[in-house]
Amino acid sequence: MNEKGISNQKLTDLLDTAKSNDVGYERVLSAMCTYPHDVAVQAHTKFIEANMGDPGLFPGTYSLEKEVINMMGQLLHCSSVHGYITTGGTESNIQALRTMVNSSNVANPNVIVPESAHFSFDKIANILGIEVKKAELDSKFKVDIGSVKSLIDSNTIGLVGIAGSTEFGQIDPINSLSDIALENNLYLHVDAAFGGFVIPFLETSYHFDFVLDGVTSIALDPHKMGFSTIPSGGILFRNREDLNHLQTHTPYLTISTQSSLTGTRSGASVAATYAVMSYLGKEGYRQIVKQCMDLTNDLVEGAKKIGINPLIEPVMNVVTLDVQDPDTLRARLRDEFGWYVSITRNPRALRLVLMPHLTHKNLDLFLQDLEKLVKIG
Amino acid sequence: MNEKGISNQKLTDLLDTAKSNDVGYERVLSAMCTYPHDVAVQAHTKFIEANMGDPGLFPGTYSLEKEVINMMGQLLHCSSVHGYITTGGTESNIQALRTMVNSSNVANPNVIVPESAHFSFDKIANILGIEVKKAELDSKFKVDIGSVKSLIDSNTIGLVGIAGSTEFGQIDPINSLSDIALENNLYLHVDAAFGGFVIPFLETSYHFDFVLDGVTSIALDPHKMGFSTIPSGGILFRNREDLNHLQTHTPYLTISTQSSLTGTRSGASVAATYAVMSYLGKEGYRQIVKQCMDLTNDLVEGAKKIGINPLIEPVMNVVTLDVQDPDTLRARLRDEFGWYVSITRNPRALRLVLMPHLTHKNLDLFLQDLEKLVKIG
Repeated sequence: MNEKGISNQKLTDLLDTAKSNDVGYERVLSAMCTYPHDVAVQAHTKFIEANMGDPGLFPGTYSLEKEVINMMGQLLHCSSVHGYITTGGTESNIQALRTMVNSSNVANPNVIVPESAHFSFDKIANILGIEVKKAELDSKFKVDIGSVKSLIDSNTIGLVGIAGSTEFGQIDPINSLSDIALENNLYLHVDAAFGGFVIPFLETSYHFDFVLDGVTSIALDPHKMGFSTIPSGGILFRNREDLNHLQTHTPYLTISTQSSLTGTRSGASVAATYAVMSYLGKEGYRQIVKQCMDLTNDLVEGAKKIGINPLIEPVMNVVTLDVQDPDTLRARLRDEFGWYVSITRNPRALRLVLMPHLTHKNLDLFLQDLEKLVKIG
Repeated sequence: MNEKGISNQKLTDLLDTAKSNDVGYERVLSAMCTYPHDVAVQAHTKFIEANMGDPGLFPGTYSLEKEVINMMGQLLHCSSVHGYITTGGTESNIQALRTMVNSSNVANPNVIVPESAHFSFDKIANILGIEVKKAELDSKFKVDIGSVKSLIDSNTIGLVGIAGSTEFGQIDPINSLSDIALENNLYLHVDAAFGGFVIPFLETSYHFDFVLDGVTSIALDPHKMGFSTIPSGGILFRNREDLNHLQTHTPYLTISTQSSLTGTRSGASVAATYAVMSYLGKEGYRQIVKQCMDLTNDLVEGAKKIGINPLIEPVMNVVTLDVQDPDTLRARLRDEFGWYVSITRNPRALRLVLMPHLTHKNLDLFLQDLEKLVKIG
């Protein structure tokens, strides 16, 4: 750190240079984040100093948080939901599993997740010091219910279902998981970090949320398909006491207990999420999701024309393409044409997320480049 | 959630109303956060979409993170430091203790922290499923070295020292803790979430950082006295392998492993922290810390004049005032005069943090109001 500070002009130059070295989302087909909506950015900046860690100092921002949690609850069929704005899916999932641990009296607890669960569940197993058992998938990359049942033992404290898997955009049979959870008196957490702001706006309707009695908590990320700013996640609990299992006593604040993972917590994200959800309404989200699904269908059609098939027909705006040597193809797409795609773990395939920063024109260009590489081999 | 979105004008009105219900920092003497610096806010907004969870898409922002970690390392006497920008002190402290757990083979590990440790260490004990033992304090509210030594057993994996305790602004004898850590082959984490951006800029110099060989990691928060935006914390490790103990394998990203707690991670905070540290330089921070210490000394002097003494002479810009019935006094200061102060746990005293959002004029008004309440009884 320098003794003397630098000038505003010098700082601007340095920041501009750094910014110009970022990729820009226009050619990114691998990300589940995108440019936040303008109204989200404006609200974020307006509430930049707000700290939800000490809500007594920010009762105005805190009232927005209560409202935004209610809005999410209503969206997911539970009007009396309890939760808060997290830093994202990982924190939301940590907190859901921590509630399971804190409310159980099992010495070596385990939680059953699908093999398709986000890698953060490995991280969470390490953080919480619990076992995460992986249930097998069926041929459509949904969790296999028989496999889930066979993994339940006396140390099992909960199940996780995925509504919008990171790799396949697939939705697990949450209704069956709900039945199993109720039968076995287990928690059922739904990781809808990506799907939470997609599934309710699809033309096809799916039962994946609090409409199912066995679902005890849901994670959904406003900073993914909610078009809010980073860091904006959401954790929702059906029952007040499940949020209460996370309480820590907080001396020297305006509140006496705190259920969040972090202490100081962004009120800017709260305001941003409130702003974009209020501004778009269901209609606005439905329109953007339709736009993403149009891009998705175009991409699949175009891929088929050049002889590449998807592993499954896309459920949402995530596509997996069955190609030879996907790792090399991925590297060449990036190095030769500047396209960013990613790869699924098993089977290895090209994975593409069709976010609203993409355009039909850019997808055409992408397909042309893909064809060149596939044909040349 | 409404079917139709609301208009931009209606949204602005709702946000304005919420904003007007927040307290505003001008009468807040209880917070360790403040208004972020203008250059931090500008940089934050400029990099609002950057996601440090996938740094290959944001190599420009990622280069700022590497630089800002180096700047913090240099500030704390370690030029080859390893770390990243966290969401704040809680995440930083979780990660420091998680490294201790992941590198040890102890079945029921414990970590020794001072009784003055931030409440987040209770939260962390619950999250990681480890025991946090509390060492007693001496008469000046520093950790008692004899107490620390007596708590070490075969399950102890690390020690924590506080450099700028939340309640007293006190600095533990980190040099003695460093010796004990080296003798017993233990980790030593220093929680300098508040003090990290204060102590290096005080007139008196203290040995509390990597200059001491036993210190293995340090937490310091740019979003407290670093004047960056929320959420900006910092975790620094002296050794690369200690950061590596936190790695999770990350398929489908531009990187293959990730050491952060969260997945998606604010690049805006990285840019904001880089901006304010570069712009202020050591000189700028020294000036602001001097301003805060002037406020602190004024407050203590004024309090003494009305017969109220501090529990200790302030080490940094945190003051504890020995008053009768502090809980009632706190409530009356808030309800009758709109001042926000807080309370220490043991002994119970008024706790005041003199942040740069305060002015000498406002402190005079505060002292007048305090005098009224103390005299009337």
